Amino acid sequence: MEIRRNPFTGERVLVSPHRLSRPWQPEGFCPFCPGGPETGQGWELLLLPNRYPVVTRNPPTPTQEELFQAEEAYGQAYVLVETPQHDLDDLSDLPPSQIEKVLRLVMKAQKEAEEDPKALYFLFFRNKGKEIGVSLTHPHSQIYILPVVPPRVETELRASEEWYRQRGTCLHCLITTREEKRIVYQNASWKSFVPYYARWPHEVHIYPKRHVSHFTALREDEVRDLADMLRKTLCAFKTALGKPMPYIMVLHQAPLRVETPHYHLHFEIYGMYRPDGKLKYAAGAELGASLYTLDTTPEETAERLRKALANCVTNPRPFRAGMGKV
Amino acid sequence: MEIRRNPFTGERVLVSPHRLSRPWQPEGFCPFCPGGPETGQGWELLLLPNRYPVVTRNPPTPTQEELFQAEEAYGQAYVLVETPQHDLDDLSDLPPSQIEKVLRLVMKAQKEAEEDPKALYFLFFRNKGKEIGVSLTHPHSQIYILPVVPPRVETELRASEEWYRQRGTCLHCLITTREEKRIVYQNASWKSFVPYYARWPHEVHIYPKRHVSHFTALREDEVRDLADMLRKTLCAFKTALGKPMPYIMVLHQAPLRVETPHYHLHFEIYGMYRPDGKLKYAAGAELGASLYTLDTTPEETAERLRKALANCVTNPRPFRAGMGKV
Repeated sequence: MEIRRNPFTGERVLVSPHRLSRPWQPEGFCPFCPGGPETGQGWELLLLPNRYPVVTRNPPTPTQEELFQAEEAYGQAYVLVETPQHDLDDLSDLPPSQIEKVLRLVMKAQKEAEEDPKALYFLFFRNKGKEIGVSLTHPHSQIYILPVVPPRVETELRASEEWYRQRGTCLHCLITTREEKRIVYQNASWKSFVPYYARWPHEVHIYPKRHVSHFTALREDEVRDLADMLRKTLCAFKTALGKPMPYIMVLHQAPLRVETPHYHLHFEIYGMYRPDGKLKYAAGAELGASLYTLDTTPEETAERLRKALANCVTNPRPFRAGMGKV
Repeated sequence: MEIRRNPFTGERVLVSPHRLSRPWQPEGFCPFCPGGPETGQGWELLLLPNRYPVVTRNPPTPTQEELFQAEEAYGQAYVLVETPQHDLDDLSDLPPSQIEKVLRLVMKAQKEAEEDPKALYFLFFRNKGKEIGVSLTHPHSQIYILPVVPPRVETELRASEEWYRQRGTCLHCLITTREEKRIVYQNASWKSFVPYYARWPHEVHIYPKRHVSHFTALREDEVRDLADMLRKTLCAFKTALGKPMPYIMVLHQAPLRVETPHYHLHFEIYGMYRPDGKLKYAAGAELGASLYTLDTTPEETAERLRKALANCVTNPRPFRAGMGKV
């Protein structure tokens, strides 16, 4: 168990051979439901240590090989069970107050991670949909506390810093402020849009309007507004194509304890259906060349999601609208 | 239709909204079989212009937006139909002489691309398996001739050049020469191995032993040996787990007309089954953070593929070995 580095791309590989022995749960059993051996009773949401983690508090010494670099797989991996209710489809089916509780629990976990000098990064993400390989459907998200900065974030940090050094402005702030035609939604403190450079057929980025480096620096009202933003945006993902869209959601923020005038936290959501409802697969061009093929335009996508979101807001039972068609 | 650039990651997005209108072929019809409107009769292999290309000889003027960068989607996209036989499973089912013909046709297409000053890169790749979204099963590979260097290759070029500048050696040559324990196969002019830094559960890189920048610079004997290498390696992918493994194969080489003492052409093959035969999905960690999770080790993988390949070589009908179990 160790973290290897690709010397050509800087990508990191979490090598965890023990994970292959993780059991496939018997049909009908859910390890996240109340009353299970890890969950117990009487909770509204839970932060569970991942039983088959990719990082651990007591990692073995990494192997050593000439030409290559590996690091200790130090850290923690958590599952955040977002509700005791097993049969909810998605985060957007929860009331705003419960989504707020989820966000506050993430914040609490990050505050703890900030105290650990060996932890360099706090990665919060959510995979949704059997179509993209999610085997446990009980609503949950995940947290990795890592001894390395994720390479994708590192790349963004580098480009953002370079822009800042040359021009004295935050490129994230500029893009967020100027974005108009690809807006999906905004409230008092957040703005979401399909980025000009979207890689996936339904991609939305969500930025706080104020420049913030870390999730733990969000104000009370910003957390409340974020719950509203996530609920409505994810409702749009669920209803835009008449069947819930599989998606990946990831929080990009600055490394722990590092203030970044050039880097602005944001959520990225990748909806993996094409406009015709077929799953988008990453293949040779995407995985082998980092060339993304988009059978639509970000402008069209923004319009589709904006309409779906507006319908979520006006519909009397908006957040269940897509469920009947599954 | 244009090529957009992500200002934070350098990734390129081929925006091709017209592609969504491409038809889903009626059940039982194959556009690559002999006698079709695009194929005709009497051929051993064919290079067909992609009917729904991501790049074209006469691209529209790209849109212009402040803060962002887009380029003309100039270029050509081809499908290489590798055999008239529809029901072959994979390239490894063809005789070595036919695989050699495939490689010589790729070479011919690249030689033509070298004459076009607007073409900067020649990307040859192969997606195999319905499990990863390949809808047309008739054996074929693809070629993109591009006005940009694929960002993944660009990143590798940069790191390789930096290594060369500091140490005066080619890191690819060093890794290829020194690799021992993760070797899968070698013949007179090629060596294949699972890289120390493999991202995918069955990943193999294939390098010519001689430092070569471009596919078109390979000698006759190297092309012949490559056919042998690909046939045996892909047979190992087909048989290692008792059912054919979906994979992505991509050729990484230098940009057209640029000699690179620091960059050494190679094939990368990503086999997408985990050791237990379940499909590996890329999700939040992979697509959102460039952190890859490997439920095995590259060393174990090399051993498994080495054994499967040895069996391909000794088995009297080796290249069909996996077929019965599909």
